[in-house]
Amino acid sequence: MDDFPNFQIPSTVETPSVCIDLRLMVQNIDRMAQALSTKNVNFRPHVKSHKSLAVARRQIAAGAAGLTTATIGEAEVFAAGGFEDLFIAYPLWLTDDKAVRLRALLERARVVIGVSSVEGAENLVAKMRGDARLGVLVEVDSGELRTGATSPEMATEVANAVARGGLSVRGVFTHGGHSYAGSGAVAGAASDEARTLLGSAAALEAAGHQVETVSAGSTPTALKSAVPGVTEERPGTFVFGDRQQVALGAHPADSVALFVAATVVQVTGRQFVLDAGGKVFTKDQPKTVEGFGTLPAYPSARVERLFDHHAVVVSTGRTMPTIGEKVAVIPNHVCPVSNLTDEFVVLDDSGVEVDRWTVDARVQNR
Amino acid sequence: MDDFPNFQIPSTVETPSVCIDLRLMVQNIDRMAQALSTKNVNFRPHVKSHKSLAVARRQIAAGAAGLTTATIGEAEVFAAGGFEDLFIAYPLWLTDDKAVRLRALLERARVVIGVSSVEGAENLVAKMRGDARLGVLVEVDSGELRTGATSPEMATEVANAVARGGLSVRGVFTHGGHSYAGSGAVAGAASDEARTLLGSAAALEAAGHQVETVSAGSTPTALKSAVPGVTEERPGTFVFGDRQQVALGAHPADSVALFVAATVVQVTGRQFVLDAGGKVFTKDQPKTVEGFGTLPAYPSARVERLFDHHAVVVSTGRTMPTIGEKVAVIPNHVCPVSNLTDEFVVLDDSGVEVDRWTVDARVQNR
Repeated sequence: MDDFPNFQIPSTVETPSVCIDLRLMVQNIDRMAQALSTKNVNFRPHVKSHKSLAVARRQIAAGAAGLTTATIGEAEVFAAGGFEDLFIAYPLWLTDDKAVRLRALLERARVVIGVSSVEGAENLVAKMRGDARLGVLVEVDSGELRTGATSPEMATEVANAVARGGLSVRGVFTHGGHSYAGSGAVAGAASDEARTLLGSAAALEAAGHQVETVSAGSTPTALKSAVPGVTEERPGTFVFGDRQQVALGAHPADSVALFVAATVVQVTGRQFVLDAGGKVFTKDQPKTVEGFGTLPAYPSARVERLFDHHAVVVSTGRTMPTIGEKVAVIPNHVCPVSNLTDEFVVLDDSGVEVDRWTVDARVQNR
Repeated sequence: MDDFPNFQIPSTVETPSVCIDLRLMVQNIDRMAQALSTKNVNFRPHVKSHKSLAVARRQIAAGAAGLTTATIGEAEVFAAGGFEDLFIAYPLWLTDDKAVRLRALLERARVVIGVSSVEGAENLVAKMRGDARLGVLVEVDSGELRTGATSPEMATEVANAVARGGLSVRGVFTHGGHSYAGSGAVAGAASDEARTLLGSAAALEAAGHQVETVSAGSTPTALKSAVPGVTEERPGTFVFGDRQQVALGAHPADSVALFVAATVVQVTGRQFVLDAGGKVFTKDQPKTVEGFGTLPAYPSARVERLFDHHAVVVSTGRTMPTIGEKVAVIPNHVCPVSNLTDEFVVLDDSGVEVDRWTVDARVQNR
């Protein structure tokens, strides 16, 4: 059994609530910042895991060079919150409306955007008409088979289309998400990230592009793909950790910093039911974990069924909670959990509530 | 292949957006209201599927007797919106804070709450101290094995504990959610609902309780468990329908009224990627459907992989979308989708945008 923290839930917390252990979160940020600093690689955490200005401020204070977002909407929230260096790591298809928003964003922050195809590049340059403020990174696929150019030649064609349209190519990025297949896949995915990035960067340079940024990113691979030539890492989930990261060997169980506080509303035999369901946890269930959550106080219990507002937990252990008891549940995947709450309850390491933080960029999917 | 509507996406809609076909939604509401009226059963739709005052107004206008919610927070939103007859169909464990909120709610609406255990009843009466305004329904489990008394004797004990504490027992309710196992399970689950409810209602009456309300509820079973003696049905999902309901035979494919509008951001061979992922669809994947969504315009395509902000779609058909194209996707399960957006884009039957509705009770999980 993994040794998760023994979270305490203060009486001020009504359930269901999403709670953060502040000391563990700060420790997670500091560890990642220091490890990347030692490797001389920029730290540009992805905000999608927390969506909170309060958390991002601590990431910048720890040495992050800027932030990564997935959408213009997230970037707008963080720019309005005073963050001035943003990478939208997504091959957005710009409409007129999104181009207007992107230009407004460039008034208040340095913004870099992703592009993954010649068509996407042609659309981007048509909408942004040579706006020299906007930086562009070409996305390359390093084995996830999702988005990105699939060869150095294709990456070069995309970069050429960007430059032809008068926008500024700054380099390449990738996401080696095939690391999530299992702990045995992480090292290979990290190596794929580095090899693909360096190959594409060399191809772009050979075609006359200036490559400033060579950016890799995922929590499992962040420290492994940070080899010479890679300039930046974009992990997100490390800030809190979750069951999936622990299963991948990418986060120590004892520094998972986020949990859901729930109340036992019924006990029947070896089964109990919690007042938090898929609308709190989502039904995210990676192949690497069983069930929908772990209860540190009841290590033999597993969340077996999840409904919109109920979690059905089955225990094989000797101790059972009593009805009305508040329990901590560590979710499978923390990113969608952050997106499903308006606030985080922030606790100190003795379980006392010290703050509430708004999830500022919640549901900013556009 | 099921014959889903051929949704049109107007140019005013940026992606990702959650869109409603107004004509089909109104048709769904009217059909359910009329069918239940014919059976002389009250119609008390569950708001968790839409969480929107604008939708609830149409349900009341069509003849709904009141609304069902899952949480006090949802009930607060609908009471503030002018709805005066609310059933919180959940065995809530009341804290002092929740009791204060429930009393405030009783100032503005008739409220009935669920209870499923003697301990829950004792806690409820201790917190609500004989407040005669509050009605209580005893939850009985009809085969879902989730919450509810598991025998007429236990239901009677729960009712006795409520009455002993000076609160008003009004009847019994159940949710035959085992209907979701597959289309072959629906008739049996409906029959289980009716039999369990009538047995428990008889036991409560024999013990001297006045049973006014005998309430069943789920979209698949709503019309099948509405037998004499059952006074109320609480379907939710019928308002929009989704892939799961179609697979269960509980909703005609051609009257599914909600879809997600997404944009194709990359095309690679037989695969394309959409700008909407698990943060729009959730990763809800019932055993009764394959993949994470259906595209009516590309019936041979299936959403095979879902990330936070990407959907990877694989097609075996002859036609493929082009990059930048907007496509409609019908989700597996509509309730969590409504909870992940701030607004619905409302379209008329020629695909023209006619309104935007707020998802008023979004993330009201407490």
